[in-house]
Amino acid sequence: MSSMWGEKIRLSIFGGSHTEAIGVTIDGLPAGEAIRMEEVLAQMARRAPGQDLTATTRKEADAPRVLCGLLNGVTTGAPLTAVIENTNQRSRDYENLRVTPRPGHADYTAAVKYGGYQDVRGGGHFSGRLTAPLVFAGAVARQLLSRRGITVASHVVSVGRCKTGDTPFDPVNVPMELLNRLSGEYFPVIDPAAKLAMREEIEKARLEKDSVGGIVECAVIGMPAGAGEPMFGGAENLFASILFGIPAVKGVDFGAGFSAAYLRGSENNDTFYYNENGEVKLRTNYSGGILGGITSGMPLIFQTAFKPTPSIGREQDTVNLQTKENTKLVVEGRHDPCIVPRAAPVVEAAACIASLELLKQSGML
Amino acid sequence: MSSMWGEKIRLSIFGGSHTEAIGVTIDGLPAGEAIRMEEVLAQMARRAPGQDLTATTRKEADAPRVLCGLLNGVTTGAPLTAVIENTNQRSRDYENLRVTPRPGHADYTAAVKYGGYQDVRGGGHFSGRLTAPLVFAGAVARQLLSRRGITVASHVVSVGRCKTGDTPFDPVNVPMELLNRLSGEYFPVIDPAAKLAMREEIEKARLEKDSVGGIVECAVIGMPAGAGEPMFGGAENLFASILFGIPAVKGVDFGAGFSAAYLRGSENNDTFYYNENGEVKLRTNYSGGILGGITSGMPLIFQTAFKPTPSIGREQDTVNLQTKENTKLVVEGRHDPCIVPRAAPVVEAAACIASLELLKQSGML
Amino acid sequence: MSSMWGEKIRLSIFGGSHTEAIGVTIDGLPAGEAIRMEEVLAQMARRAPGQDLTATTRKEADAPRVLCGLLNGVTTGAPLTAVIENTNQRSRDYENLRVTPRPGHADYTAAVKYGGYQDVRGGGHFSGRLTAPLVFAGAVARQLLSRRGITVASHVVSVGRCKTGDTPFDPVNVPMELLNRLSGEYFPVIDPAAKLAMREEIEKARLEKDSVGGIVECAVIGMPAGAGEPMFGGAENLFASILFGIPAVKGVDFGAGFSAAYLRGSENNDTFYYNENGEVKLRTNYSGGILGGITSGMPLIFQTAFKPTPSIGREQDTVNLQTKENTKLVVEGRHDPCIVPRAAPVVEAAACIASLELLKQSGML
Amino acid sequence: MSSMWGEKIRLSIFGGSHTEAIGVTIDGLPAGEAIRMEEVLAQMARRAPGQDLTATTRKEADAPRVLCGLLNGVTTGAPLTAVIENTNQRSRDYENLRVTPRPGHADYTAAVKYGGYQDVRGGGHFSGRLTAPLVFAGAVARQLLSRRGITVASHVVSVGRCKTGDTPFDPVNVPMELLNRLSGEYFPVIDPAAKLAMREEIEKARLEKDSVGGIVECAVIGMPAGAGEPMFGGAENLFASILFGIPAVKGVDFGAGFSAAYLRGSENNDTFYYNENGEVKLRTNYSGGILGGITSGMPLIFQTAFKPTPSIGREQDTVNLQTKENTKLVVEGRHDPCIVPRAAPVVEAAACIASLELLKQSGML
Repeated sequence: MSSMWGEKIRLSIFGGSHTEAIGVTIDGLPAGEAIRMEEVLAQMARRAPGQDLTATTRKEADAPRVLCGLLNGVTTGAPLTAVIENTNQRSRDYENLRVTPRPGHADYTAAVKYGGYQDVRGGGHFSGRLTAPLVFAGAVARQLLSRRGITVASHVVSVGRCKTGDTPFDPVNVPMELLNRLSGEYFPVIDPAAKLAMREEIEKARLEKDSVGGIVECAVIGMPAGAGEPMFGGAENLFASILFGIPAVKGVDFGAGFSAAYLRGSENNDTFYYNENGEVKLRTNYSGGILGGITSGMPLIFQTAFKPTPSIGREQDTVNLQTKENTKLVVEGRHDPCIVPRAAPVVEAAACIASLELLKQSGML
Repeated sequence: MSSMWGEKIRLSIFGGSHTEAIGVTIDGLPAGEAIRMEEVLAQMARRAPGQDLTATTRKEADAPRVLCGLLNGVTTGAPLTAVIENTNQRSRDYENLRVTPRPGHADYTAAVKYGGYQDVRGGGHFSGRLTAPLVFAGAVARQLLSRRGITVASHVVSVGRCKTGDTPFDPVNVPMELLNRLSGEYFPVIDPAAKLAMREEIEKARLEKDSVGGIVECAVIGMPAGAGEPMFGGAENLFASILFGIPAVKGVDFGAGFSAAYLRGSENNDTFYYNENGEVKLRTNYSGGILGGITSGMPLIFQTAFKPTPSIGREQDTVNLQTKENTKLVVEGRHDPCIVPRAAPVVEAAACIASLELLKQSGML
Repeated sequence: MSSMWGEKIRLSIFGGSHTEAIGVTIDGLPAGEAIRMEEVLAQMARRAPGQDLTATTRKEADAPRVLCGLLNGVTTGAPLTAVIENTNQRSRDYENLRVTPRPGHADYTAAVKYGGYQDVRGGGHFSGRLTAPLVFAGAVARQLLSRRGITVASHVVSVGRCKTGDTPFDPVNVPMELLNRLSGEYFPVIDPAAKLAMREEIEKARLEKDSVGGIVECAVIGMPAGAGEPMFGGAENLFASILFGIPAVKGVDFGAGFSAAYLRGSENNDTFYYNENGEVKLRTNYSGGILGGITSGMPLIFQTAFKPTPSIGREQDTVNLQTKENTKLVVEGRHDPCIVPRAAPVVEAAACIASLELLKQSGML
Repeated sequence: MSSMWGEKIRLSIFGGSHTEAIGVTIDGLPAGEAIRMEEVLAQMARRAPGQDLTATTRKEADAPRVLCGLLNGVTTGAPLTAVIENTNQRSRDYENLRVTPRPGHADYTAAVKYGGYQDVRGGGHFSGRLTAPLVFAGAVARQLLSRRGITVASHVVSVGRCKTGDTPFDPVNVPMELLNRLSGEYFPVIDPAAKLAMREEIEKARLEKDSVGGIVECAVIGMPAGAGEPMFGGAENLFASILFGIPAVKGVDFGAGFSAAYLRGSENNDTFYYNENGEVKLRTNYSGGILGGITSGMPLIFQTAFKPTPSIGREQDTVNLQTKENTKLVVEGRHDPCIVPRAAPVVEAAACIASLELLKQSGML
């Protein structure tokens, strides 16, 4: 619970936006797995800010230092810990946030929970910066999955009210080429026209000192059938339990998801057939690769909804918890008008970790 | 995992559609809580089938027998176990389901996972019948919550493509009268016209030997601010981890949820103010009562998407796992053309249990 | 926690001495395992009271009814629940125990924890009767282990101050014949003379309205090397976490255990060698089959210390929690002057469950 | 599991003897707790090697760097991570240990489990050095306990066959003065004559290139009555689950423990009385402060058995896993002839963490 997750592949994420360092421990990795650090860094680069105008111009060095768990680049079976120093914080006064909580942020709820002792600097432990160690862990997990024929990729389906949404994945047949392209890209979008339109939507919000949210669709390809358990041990429960740990995620659905609520059974039921190789396949994949909590061998597909970045440049109403009066607040600093482009690799990282956990829980790793 | 859930309020659900009995153990209930069994039965009645044409005409007695955990109707602090005998199963041959999996059901994935040893009779442990013990547990939890000023209610927002959706909850102010009405009702809907239209939609599907899904919105009112933890210990993670355990749930979102992805930050940010009693409140509640995983004291509101009932009377394509050939299947028996009316009390039950767990995890119980 | 245990093989034990029924749910059993019920009953018979003068003359029918989890005697992979009706309780007044706690029992600590709402009848949920469902679960686990070449047996090493202790297991070579004999026996002891002397010690205590404790040694033979994890995931941690759940257990040690504290390293170090089959073996087994938390492939051997039965016929000092005065108490009813003979199968049951969990955690099941 | 522990106060320990650094994350600490770092360092100094001839002369700087979780020396409620750099490893060849496992160490079992990929340098993740972060965490927990009137101290009862054992704690009345003295001391012993004799025993072993084990008794004073749960959630289960995580621990017992097995019920039953303040007390404390898994308010007392240090200077038999032949091994390097003096603060640390967890689990924190 809290900042630890998992039963067999156990994560522990620590640090805050302005603490000396942040990091992650991954416990339960099998021994003998070579980890290519340049691939880890490539995934972390996809999440890093400052790449274009859609994101904050703040730079992060974000070079993780592996303290333990690897010997000559290979997992030893002992916990793997990586630490990222926090070196680029602007030294400014955050103390006002302890008193005047930012709308849409966790400032107020943290104040109630921690009685005012919480670290408010840059959002503290609630900061989106904590997704950096998550991406580190996901990039490690991704290499283990890849070695077992499992690929994870995502794309931004929509941002804000931009009418040109991206083409959804074909749930039955996701081309490996596309997955490889998307999973290496900053701001992954299938359709270039959609990406252009989304950039414009984000830029519009930025110029208006506002922000937009969006939707990320993610696919896990190659997961064998039979992983997961009924009821509370289902693949959906497991994925949701980590996905809702990503800041700003407010909704998760699988396969047709919320759209399934509008379908007839005769449409939504994925029928079975034997393919030419004598394997059982499903003709459609409205179930998103999961039936009764257990994987069907079809692509595992889910969508994640991100709310708009709460930090906006406009004046907003809030309270002063000290004087107990209503007041106004302008959130200073550099903000992402839209975190969704940078959130895609975070969603993939969570999916990689959840997939590895699911395999290990199911005795398939 | 699997059929156990929770850390402080621990559920263990057991049984299958056609086993001798089904039931639930609740471990971790505080001692000294009077449980009125008639209220438990009233909740279970809301879930029971056979109430009207929207559901299967199969009857369930569903009288739970409490084996332990209560003394003179009061919790002792020891595990509370209730058992419901399975008495009304039609004795027919289910063995064909072991060989020809029903589309949309867990028959195939269970066959892969359990190697053909799974109980296929009536869906076995994957049966919707397993929600009866969940509702039992939820009804017990509800009484503890009620004693602490917390109310849980839900309504069916939509079924199928029915255009007349129900009025959503006012996320800032849900009238207690309405909550009390809905939480006692079979097929709870706020707007009578919407209910009528939904009934028609369901009846239409039934006549066409088809089925429809739908969306349930649920509200938890009175939850104090400060419950839940950041990252993986958030209220959203906890609720999702139990909600996805309800058969047919394919999506969960909180507050504005997926709609938040289409909003601007300036719209979606819930601003703070002091009300006349000197309490901090939020003017809007797009966050659904949760910020950074921690409750804000506002109504905790979420939506759950149900796929259409997979059991339909039409002939469907499937495979014969024995002969390894494609084949056709007509699912016999009594089916719900729409389980959503009966699912509403199940969603509430899960919300009651999750709320109790959240309070106990947060040291508030 | 509390009455649930395990991560992969999950137990949930419910009921109390005088509730309607007691029972157990086992979640996580692999599918396709035939369970011979007569062997389960044979194990339960070893624990049953009333066999001779060493134990209470109270009779228990203890016929478990399997509600679910088996189909034609074979596990389905779904939770297996067994219920034992409580039919033989003498209907007498236990209410005085709510006010005058019995020394050595949990009456007082339960009163503090549950605020007086605990079920005091016959010890409630703290009753030794709750070991009946534990033995049921252990007997199921034992059959899975047996199928994988793993045998579990125990013997009573000592009772009270009886000077004739039983011969300890040869930690390097425990004859299968002996294991099979002991694991089928009521009051298992290797040396008949020792058993005779122990019986006398127990009878002496009984005649003096007193009780004695004792020590049980248990061996798990056939466990493969490499199960368990370092630090908190070690085999010792796992076994201890279930063994201390047996009422009256106050100490657990592995291999030479407390005696190892008196040895030199040159004595206690188990040296390695290749046997004639080219397998690595240890010449001695002071480590009890566990090094660094991980099994070595040698017999896993541990001892468990039982305190004397707290229920004795003598008058004892206690308090009246109502009048807040010191008072005297004579515990009525039928007591075991020594529970150790009946505890041996309970220790074995716990060892069977822990072994199965260890295998499954280690991906060996 | 493995290197993570706890449910409410969650530890994650990482690193190995020769990795870049080792450390610990503590998740779940309440916010607003001032942590005096000099007291933490004082506890760590008690565990540090090189203090006298009883221990290795190897020096450790062991200055922990707190990465996060404290703001101005006060807990923020977010995970607290401390890292200790590994700076003093002698760079020598450990690769032979991958091939010729040391008797009494985890080299062989780790080789089986991790397939040869484990870090063998200095014992890797199995090294006693990993107790440094455990002591760090314990020293943090100790300050929270102290603030709530709870004191933890231990002493070395015996080493090897030294006949002069230390005076055991009076289980009913442990003087605070004594506790304060012991809990600040390197090699804590109550009776100076016993300490002298133990030193001689250790020196004798050292001169003979051998090692000795010993027993540590630990007391937790001030724990309120009513903490802990029945069966698997008992205080004994919880303490044992962390204590067996300390390298070389092979036995744990509570109160009279294994000795209770030799007592009569009439001796071992702790009778109740009202003291002059109207509080319920126990006249004796054979139960070690725990009845039915729940604390009684009396001192919580337990003993922990340590096996002799496996690293000895003598030639020992072992195998060569590569050539598959029997061989001889002399373990090079600096060894502790007895780790028990340094183990006492480690036992206390584990007790502090377990006590804090027990309080938080029981809603008393």
